[in-house]
Amino acid sequence: MKYHVNGEIVPEDEATVSVRDRGFLYGDAVFETMRVYGGQIFEWDAHENRLHDSAERLGFADAVPDDLHERARETIAANECSEAYLRLTVSRGVQSRGLTPNTTVDPTVVVQIGELPRGGVDGESVWAEPATVQIVKTRRAPDVALPADAKTHNYLGGVLARLELERAATEQYRADEALLRDMDGTLVEGTTSNVFFVEDGTLKTPSLDGPILPGVTRSVVLDLAADERFPVETGEYVPADVRSADEAFLTNSTWELRPIGRADGIAVGSGPVTELLTRLFDEYVEQRHYDD
Amino acid sequence: MKYHVNGEIVPEDEATVSVRDRGFLYGDAVFETMRVYGGQIFEWDAHENRLHDSAERLGFADAVPDDLHERARETIAANECSEAYLRLTVSRGVQSRGLTPNTTVDPTVVVQIGELPRGGVDGESVWAEPATVQIVKTRRAPDVALPADAKTHNYLGGVLARLELERAATEQYRADEALLRDMDGTLVEGTTSNVFFVEDGTLKTPSLDGPILPGVTRSVVLDLAADERFPVETGEYVPADVRSADEAFLTNSTWELRPIGRADGIAVGSGPVTELLTRLFDEYVEQRHYDD
Repeated sequence: MKYHVNGEIVPEDEATVSVRDRGFLYGDAVFETMRVYGGQIFEWDAHENRLHDSAERLGFADAVPDDLHERARETIAANECSEAYLRLTVSRGVQSRGLTPNTTVDPTVVVQIGELPRGGVDGESVWAEPATVQIVKTRRAPDVALPADAKTHNYLGGVLARLELERAATEQYRADEALLRDMDGTLVEGTTSNVFFVEDGTLKTPSLDGPILPGVTRSVVLDLAADERFPVETGEYVPADVRSADEAFLTNSTWELRPIGRADGIAVGSGPVTELLTRLFDEYVEQRHYDD
Repeated sequence: MKYHVNGEIVPEDEATVSVRDRGFLYGDAVFETMRVYGGQIFEWDAHENRLHDSAERLGFADAVPDDLHERARETIAANECSEAYLRLTVSRGVQSRGLTPNTTVDPTVVVQIGELPRGGVDGESVWAEPATVQIVKTRRAPDVALPADAKTHNYLGGVLARLELERAATEQYRADEALLRDMDGTLVEGTTSNVFFVEDGTLKTPSLDGPILPGVTRSVVLDLAADERFPVETGEYVPADVRSADEAFLTNSTWELRPIGRADGIAVGSGPVTELLTRLFDEYVEQRHYDD
């Protein structure tokens, strides 16, 4: 694959950043992972807005270039990739030595892409099986320690949570996604996904009052549910609510909607609400990206 | 300056890492910042041990190379630098796509160096003035969210704390270092330093029971104080304890001991204990690095 680094299309071995880049030194960078359907980026505006919000939280929103969509399109074109994921990073770049950021920012902008089979109405999901999820000991950092609504390169919490799954895995049992609680024990999200569940016909998901990344797919699903006048509730839940739910699923840009097969070893699974929302989501993508 | 990247001495424009390096993507890397005195690294063993501990917390200690001291020495030699700081990074390197780390790790190892004037008995401090410190709103992440005793590239908490200082700065007043509290309001450390203060002749510093990086200079200072049979206490303190202290100072590898001139606007300053410990520290360095 070809990469887009600071305005240039380069082959993989030239897709590098300085060891002095603050994105490398401190994880001082923001990113988005997006889905490309039929050669076009899904929900571009929502991703670009969130990237700006993330950079705002880190104090370098003014340095985010205006032509990110163009760079993303050039990356898609250079790789002739119509079904893909696309990761866009903006770091604070190289600055003078020291932790305190300089006011003047020359950002590092990287776009990388990878082929991903299309799911959707006629396609195949990128996941082969429903998700197996597990509550882990690692907690989501409080907002005052690390702003949860900023998607940054400080992603070790998620890495450590996934390592817990690997350490607990056996030949018979391996969880795909870790579910995180905040410091109070409230369920917040997966390491790379938001979590939904259905109880007595009501669709429920943790509210953004907690330390939660406002997922783009999460937002699309909530809109689709509202359009259908589904009963929807956002609030504070605990892991037991997922384990005892009638249905449950995860959302993110690459998985789209992925049913939770087992939570902490307990069977949960898909159901009519998950199936209907999945169909509505597929149609939403179909209308925007594939209809002539 | 020349850099040491994955076993090779390279000029700055070749000192790069892949955009796919997990140190860049997720801050999935550990590091140490050390001091070079008279061409030799100060307290190498303590730094190497802590780097191993950090990598252990991240699950890739087995992948840390054995020849790190040699790489550091080669970097010093290539730059003909006898008085310097030296930063050593080991990241989890490039792996297949996805947040979950692979078991097999091909680490990225980077050594970078910069000249730093020698302080000490006959030298000049790297800092011109006592430190001005300020308590910030950003809190140190709890250990269950981000292990505090691991020195990693997830350093945004410190970046955000320093940004608070910049935003609060005026022409008359600019703090150099932010003091962080944990979620309970207990004083823990600076963004790149440990904090000490003196009350009624007793030297006090937050204990490692809290979310605190076990500083190498902190440890040397505590050993020196113990050798002199100074009254020493490690415990739980609040910011007001520093403001009302008789003396206070910060420690880190580049600053060594740096008196706190003002804390939250209140004059604190150096005093006999800080001055004696500074002299003892300078002699300790002198004996190990400059005596023939």
